Formats: sequence, structure tokens, C-alpha cells
Amino acid sequence: MKKQNNSKLRIIPLGGLESIGMNITAFEYGDSIIVVDCGLAFPEDDMYGIDLCVPVITYLQDNIERVKAFFFTHGHEDHIGALPYVLLEVNVPIYATKLTMGLIEHKLEEHDLLDKVRRKVVSYGQHINMGDFRVEFIKTNHSIQDAAALAIYSPAGIVVHTGDFKVDYTPVYGDAIDLQRFGEIGKKGVLALMCDSTNAERPGFTMTESTVGKVFDSIFADHKTQRIIIATFASNVDRVQQIINTACKFGRKVVVEGRSMVNIISIASELGYLDIPDNTLIEEDYMKNYPDEKMVLITTGSQGEPLAALSRMANGTHKKVRITPNDLIVFSSNPIPGNEKAVSRIINELYQKSADVIFQDTHVSGHACQEEIKLIYSLLQPKYSIPVHGEYKHRKAQAQLAATLGIPKDRILMLDSGDVLEIDEESAEVVGTVPHGSVFVDGLGIGDVGNIVMRDRQHLAEDGIIIVVLTLESGSGQLLAGPDIVSRGFVYVRESESLMDEAQQVVNEAVYRMVDRHITDWGKIKSEIRDALGDFVWKKTKRRPMLIPIIMEV
Amino acid sequence: MKKQNNSKLRIIPLGGLESIGMNITAFEYGDSIIVVDCGLAFPEDDMYGIDLCVPVITYLQDNIERVKAFFFTHGHEDHIGALPYVLLEVNVPIYATKLTMGLIEHKLEEHDLLDKVRRKVVSYGQHINMGDFRVEFIKTNHSIQDAAALAIYSPAGIVVHTGDFKVDYTPVYGDAIDLQRFGEIGKKGVLALMCDSTNAERPGFTMTESTVGKVFDSIFADHKTQRIIIATFASNVDRVQQIINTACKFGRKVVVEGRSMVNIISIASELGYLDIPDNTLIEEDYMKNYPDEKMVLITTGSQGEPLAALSRMANGTHKKVRITPNDLIVFSSNPIPGNEKAVSRIINELYQKSADVIFQDTHVSGHACQEEIKLIYSLLQPKYSIPVHGEYKHRKAQAQLAATLGIPKDRILMLDSGDVLEIDEESAEVVGTVPHGSVFVDGLGIGDVGNIVMRDRQHLAEDGIIIVVLTLESGSGQLLAGPDIVSRGFVYVRESESLMDEAQQVVNEAVYRMVDRHITDWGKIKSEIRDALGDFVWKKTKRRPMLIPIIMEV
Repeated sequence: MKKQNNSKLRIIPLGGLESIGMNITAFEYGDSIIVVDCGLAFPEDDMYGIDLCVPVITYLQDNIERVKAFFFTHGHEDHIGALPYVLLEVNVPIYATKLTMGLIEHKLEEHDLLDKVRRKVVSYGQHINMGDFRVEFIKTNHSIQDAAALAIYSPAGIVVHTGDFKVDYTPVYGDAIDLQRFGEIGKKGVLALMCDSTNAERPGFTMTESTVGKVFDSIFADHKTQRIIIATFASNVDRVQQIINTACKFGRKVVVEGRSMVNIISIASELGYLDIPDNTLIEEDYMKNYPDEKMVLITTGSQGEPLAALSRMANGTHKKVRITPNDLIVFSSNPIPGNEKAVSRIINELYQKSADVIFQDTHVSGHACQEEIKLIYSLLQPKYSIPVHGEYKHRKAQAQLAATLGIPKDRILMLDSGDVLEIDEESAEVVGTVPHGSVFVDGLGIGDVGNIVMRDRQHLAEDGIIIVVLTLESGSGQLLAGPDIVSRGFVYVRESESLMDEAQQVVNEAVYRMVDRHITDWGKIKSEIRDALGDFVWKKTKRRPMLIPIIMEV
Repeated sequence: MKKQNNSKLRIIPLGGLESIGMNITAFEYGDSIIVVDCGLAFPEDDMYGIDLCVPVITYLQDNIERVKAFFFTHGHEDHIGALPYVLLEVNVPIYATKLTMGLIEHKLEEHDLLDKVRRKVVSYGQHINMGDFRVEFIKTNHSIQDAAALAIYSPAGIVVHTGDFKVDYTPVYGDAIDLQRFGEIGKKGVLALMCDSTNAERPGFTMTESTVGKVFDSIFADHKTQRIIIATFASNVDRVQQIINTACKFGRKVVVEGRSMVNIISIASELGYLDIPDNTLIEEDYMKNYPDEKMVLITTGSQGEPLAALSRMANGTHKKVRITPNDLIVFSSNPIPGNEKAVSRIINELYQKSADVIFQDTHVSGHACQEEIKLIYSLLQPKYSIPVHGEYKHRKAQAQLAATLGIPKDRILMLDSGDVLEIDEESAEVVGTVPHGSVFVDGLGIGDVGNIVMRDRQHLAEDGIIIVVLTLESGSGQLLAGPDIVSRGFVYVRESESLMDEAQQVVNEAVYRMVDRHITDWGKIKSEIRDALGDFVWKKTKRRPMLIPIIMEV
């Protein structure tokens, strides 16, 4: 990569451009680097055993002395979740709005990092000077409160990063998005707009969150004798507020189910983002004192997560909640792509317990649709468009919108993670790439499960393993014990004894061939066993289990 | 289960009521058993390494002398796919319409069973006498031609099984569904209706297949200079016909891609279900002789199947087709639930190669929506409703429709697979259950991968394996070699040497503890190793790899 042109700004998305997750973008000018967001990604289906993925941050580590700060747009996991892992390597001050900071602090506390990190809560309209940069937080709306767009002022021009946003003229809590400020900044002249692409394929406008409250009202009015269980995203505090409002209106008590739901509700109400009237929330253990028609449960698990509270209720393994025919379960969420089947499974289980289920018209998205995206472009009138936050197809849809708004095609920049974009009023060009990708977090380990381990797990999952063990006499190479065969995940041995007997025969012959020829090179013996056994198993079963020959010497 | 009441009909769904797949239903009266359909299911995400699932047919095997025949409603895999496996145990004559039989015969040929099975091609309107039963084939419409509903006449009354169907007044090939005959049979009096539930949650009417042809026409008109690649279901012969019609209209040659697509097109055109003008189809190898604007490719892989032709084109591993910016890829299909992510991945890959992609308005369903289901109920006016073909939530939606049509709730029967329903004009009651479930087919093996093997694979996939090997002296129990540790799919050893060194230490200590106390019981030694190593690994990593101690004796 060539040396940085002194007059140009560098924008380096380190993640988040392949799928929704792991959002982290570096901005570099002269001696200053600032980072926007630091999110995690949840594993794909074929990443066996992985809990979560965090971004590769080699670029930040290599330039550690220039990295000034992290700025956060909002408190969702795909924007803050990697911070505890990244801070271990890059410990710089962090800036966020109040609720976002509350959620970050909870996370740092869990990782025992809270007193090791400098933090500053920022208000909308506030500007933070940071080396060659100045960063302004602008009010937006999203499915979590306190979301902000960032106006990033640099000597090369102003970049606006929307974060995740929608336009909600009548939000449940707080103000509508600060469209006036977008207009003002647009008047100053915006170099580039980095705008949320999640819903860029959808025409029209995203509905206001307030509509969901009205739907809750009518559901409660229609189901006056049933217990009502509402599953939603733990982080959607406005949704929870509306459930609580409706519950109060109908004289019901509220129980909160699921660890992340309990956490976020307690953080949000402590910070004043949730208004819960006294005597509304009750503990799980007191549920039995109230009849069904006086109860609402708010629970996690709306995405079909197998360990979440709703899943355990549906399959009958929840410790305190039994589903009965007098229950109404409301899914206040849409399945995120990939979760459709898991959600269906839970709905089926609930129906089989004769419960009622509602899963339509009880959710609105937190992301801008096409008309909202066009509105932001029209207010900001950026010179360059850099669609972010979304799979390629979502970002491509935004690129097409930008083109219809008159932005020339060569100023619409489709970046990949790791790209180094050098940009100013004169030009924009990808001048190189930096390391990027994801580090697997599995149990307590960060990064110790790499591609080799993952490939092994995939192999083991598909076809199982056959282990062959034998003991040779040191020097003479005479066979003292074995070969013994052990298999797991291949075929159930009792049902396939003749297959394993034959396999034993094949291995014996392979070993004897080598021993009789006085071959003592372990590598040769192992590969002879692998070849013979592999061929035999493939011929007989059309499977390729992992084969591990182990030789011991006495 | 009590002895069969002589005057009653038994209906026994052996599969197909938990998800869409593995449709097979037995009907029993007196000394006669007939079976409708014999389908397979594709594995769930957590059934590692499994190719497909076929139904448990213990009930048919136990009553083999009474089983008279198989009747098939249509040629989709979830209705015919298990036949080659089931016929090995239950070899009775099979009855089906012409195209359905053509697809069955192709399947039997692949399994070398063709000359071992008696088969009879049936026409619509034809009645087959079979013991105490008579079975009539009635014309319906579906996303594959030659679909039939079955009217099953028994001394206890008439049961109508719709198979998979929709109402298409203007089908691409052949006649519309024979609504008159449904009306006539309804007039005779129908005991029970077993109706397709797939789209029972969707209001309105499913569009006619012909609408898709018009969409193809306008897509071809709008993209005159590009190569067009259309991905669809191999078995949707009418869809293929419409693509060919449009291709001819616009003077393009057609190449067929993907093994199952080639197979079905050749069977369908041989039997006269596809009309392909001369000089329309060309071989893949001759593609290079034609410019992009003269070509259409029809391909498999519309569901994102990783090994299908479209997937290989998208990721650049297809041997003969390279995607270029001059390609337009049309998805003529909707993702089946569970496949959304895989389809998205392919769309993203295609966009990244700068190709155009269309994936809206180019597909209609093959299943009846609510208005069509109501129509069939109104024509047949059955005494009992038995919703079939669908997950519980789909069948429940049909049950609700049936109730709105005036069928009393106690005559709407929600069965589970394996239920034995005894039914006549007087009553309907589940009197017992028979064995049911699925047998895994993996490679060449049928049923040799059971639950134990599957649990092992899941365990291996999540956390990998650690193998501990040691050699003891026979008699004395002295340690001669090892303990050696080998791991796969756990952590990458080079990156975690200290962890594995410590693990070695832990195992050594465990072994010495036993050897020093002259313990020679292998079970005790193994469990000591498992306990010590398991505790250590959990404490250090919060993972539980599979632990396999192997002891050899010399």
C-alpha cells in the first residue's frame, strides 16, 4: 500500500460489509485514527461450536500509537459486542450516548474491564475533538434508544455515518431524528455519506414504533381471559415500554423472563429510559399468586434461540413456566434470515400444547426503507455514497437508489472489508487492503479455533472418526499390540459388526505388509493404514471418516 | 392397541405430519392395507452427514401379508423418494399416473430395482380395485404435472386425499383440476377429507402458473443483450416449458445445467410432457459458438444448494460457465424455509461478479391458498376434516378454515405421525399408535447411523476430540509407552502448546496415580484419565471435547 497522501482522508471498514454483524470502521487522517463501532458477529451454521466472532484488528494494533478513540452509534451487539475482546489489545477512550454507554459498561463489568477503560458519555449535538478529527453525535431513531449518526469532520471534508437508523416522527421515547441538523450539515457540504443498507431493498417507509402499541392494545382487548406471553428482542426498550403501558391499561402484572431481558430492562430503567409504574413488575416466583388473566410475561427467544426462555417454555423444560391451552403467545419480532426454521419449530410446539399464537403485525423494523434513505441523501447531498451495513445485495440496492438520486456511478463506492479508501474532494480510490476477517471465540478461547480446527470439526461432523492404534517394538519394529480400531460418529458398531470386522482385517493386512518388510518409518506405516482403510471404507459405505493412525513404541 | 372394529376404517399416517417431507399414509380395512405415497425427507441442520431420511415402516413389515399396493399422488421426492428403500422390505405393486411413474421408474432403475417391481400406469377417472378398497385418480394441478387426488372408497365411507394441489384454471399443460368430479363425489357423501395444508396460512388464491410465462417475456424483452440464466426447481416441467417458449420467441438457444434438471427434462419430453422445438436445446460444449444474447441457461440450484450448478457458477468453480457482468440471473423460485441464507449468499456472490439478478415476481406456488382450500371443502362437504401435508401450524391453519366452514370442532382431527385413527360415519377416534420416525440414509448405509452416532457427531462438531493412548505391560500393569495425546477439532495445537503441555502433565499424573497403586483395571484407568483431563480442559477452556482413552497391552 502506498504512503498516505497527506491531504486525504482514509476510510477503512474492518468488518461489517459481508453480512450484518461485526461493524467496525477506522478513519485515518495524518497522525490520527478514530474507530466507529466495534461489533461482533454470530457464527454461521457451519462454524461448529463457535460462540461468536470478533474482528481481526491487526491494522489497529500495528498503528496503536495513532489510535485515539472508539465512537459508538448505538448499543446493539453487532456494534458494541467485540469491545471487551478488542480493548485487550487496543485500550483507548470510548465515547457513546448514555444508554449505549450503559450497555457497554455492563459488558465491560462482565469481563472485569470496567475500571481499566476511559469512558465519556456524549449528548446529541456535542462535538468531540480528537486529533485531526472532530466528531458530532446527531439524534436518530432505531429499534434501540439513544442511537446516533456521527458527523466526522476532517481536513479532507465531512463524512456522515448514519449508524443503524430509521425515521420515526412519533417515537415512543424521546425525540424524532434530528432532520434539521442533517439539513444544516448538508448545507455545509458533505464529502461522503455512509448509510445503513439493511432495508434498502424495501420500498416505502418503515412504520413508526408507536403502531405496535396500538396492536398490543387490541390484542389485549381480544384476549381478556388468557395469560399473554410476548417474545421480543431484549434490546428493544421501546417495545418493552409499550407492553408495560398496555399491561397497565388492562390491569395486568408483568414478569420478565430471560437473562438478557432482565439485564437490559434494569439498565434502561436505572438510566431513565423505561417508565415502569410501581407494583407492575413482579418476580417470577409470585406469578402463582395471580390468575392467568392478570399476567403478562415478556420473554427472550423470539428468534427461536434454543436456550432462550421461550424455547424452554415451548419444549416443556422451563423451570417455572408451563404452557397451557389458556396461553396466548405473541411474537413481537420477525425472524432474522436464517432463523425461520427455528421460529417455526417453536410455533409448532406451542400449538401442539394447544396455546394460541400470534406472529403477524406485531413488529416494525428499526431500519430505514427506500424513502427514508432517499430523504437522508436529499438532506445531506453527499459528493460520494458509501453504502454500509448489509450484505452485498442490500448495499447494492442502496447504490441503485443513490444513482437514481443523481450521484454519478463513479462516486458510488462499493467497498469490501479491509479496503483502504483514500478520499477527498478531488478523488476517491481504494489504495490497498489491510488484514481483516474474524476471530472465533469458543468458550474461554479467543482465536485458538482457527480454520484448521474448523475444517476438522466439519469433517468429524459429516463422517465421524476412526482411530487405529498399534504398539511396535523399538528398534526391531515388531508388532507388539494392536492394531486396535476405535470409531466414533461413523456407524454404530453393534449394527455393523461385520463391517468393522472386515475393516480390522484390512488394517491387519496393511500393518503386516509393513512389518514383514521391516519398515519402521512411522510415516510410511501410517499412510499405508490410511490408504488401505480409507479405500475400504469408501468402497463399502461411500463415506470418508477422519482416519487417525497412532503408533506407540515400547 | 385394541383389535380393529370390523366396520371401521383405519387411517395411519406413518410420516409427513411434523414437517413437509416423508409423506406416507396407510389405509386399513379388514384384510386390506393400501399405502398412499412413500416420500423422503431432507435432513435437518443438526443431522450431520445425513443425505436423506426415509420413514420407519415397521407397521407395514409386521402386516406384510395384508399390504396390497402403493398409490402415488405425484412425482415429488417428498412423495416418491423413499420408495427404493421401502420396496426392499415391502415389495407390492405400485400405481401412479404416467409422469409420476416415469420419475419413479428412473429412481428404481438407479437402484437396480426396475425389473423387481410390478407397476401400473393409471389414467384420471380410472378406478383400481384393491381388496376392500377402490381407489380413483382425480385430476388436480400442482407444480409438477400429472398430480392426482385420490378418492379412496371403503365399506366405511369415502376418503378423499388431495395430494399436493392448487386450483389452476389455465394451466400451462393439460387440463384444469377436475372440480366437477370433486362435486360429484361430494354429492355421494364424503366421510373424510385429507387436504394439503402447505399454504393454509395464506389468504386468497394461488396465481396460475401461466403468469410466470408473461413475466419471462417481459424480462427477455428488457434484457436483449445479456446472457440469461434461470434457476428453478428441476421438477417444475411447466416452468421449464415456459422458459423454452420465451427463449424460442426471442430466438435464443437453451442449455440445461445440473444432473437432476437434465434427467427430468429428458423423462418429461420422452413422455410428451414437454414440447421442445428442434434446434432449441444445445449441449453445454457448443455454448461458445453463440453470443450471450442468443443464450438461455436453465439450471438447478435455486435453493442455494451448495453443490448444484448455480452455486458452482456463483463461486467460480463451475467447469464450463463463468459468470460475467453481461449475465442476468433469474431466480424462478422462492426459498424454502431454512434456505434463505444460502440463497442470499449466492445472490451476493453473483452481484460481486457484477452480474444482474432478478428474484421477484418470477415464481408462483404449487399449493392451494385459503380460498382454494375452502373451494375443495365446499365441493366435497366432508363429515370429518383431517388436515395433512404441513407443519403443525399449517395444519392448524387449515383446521381453523374448516371450522369457519361449519365443520364441528370434534370432527376436525389433528393427527400425529404414527396415530391409528379408527373412523366411520358414527365416530372417529385415535385408538393407538404404531412405530414411526425416520431412518437416516448416509452414503450407502440405511439406518446404520442411529441416534448414538448422531449424538457423537454433534459432540465432535461442537468441541472436537482428544485421544489418549498408552501401552501397559501385561500382568504387571507397568507403563511401557505413552500416555500420548492427539486432538482434532479442539484447539490448534501449535497455538496452544502450553495448554496441551499442561494437559499432558495432567494425564501423566492421572496415569502414574493408577500405575503406582498397581491398578490394572482398564475401566478404572480410563475413567481416571477422563475425569482428570475433562476437569482440566473444562476449567481452562469451558469446552467439553470428546475424550477417548485407549489402552494397549503388550
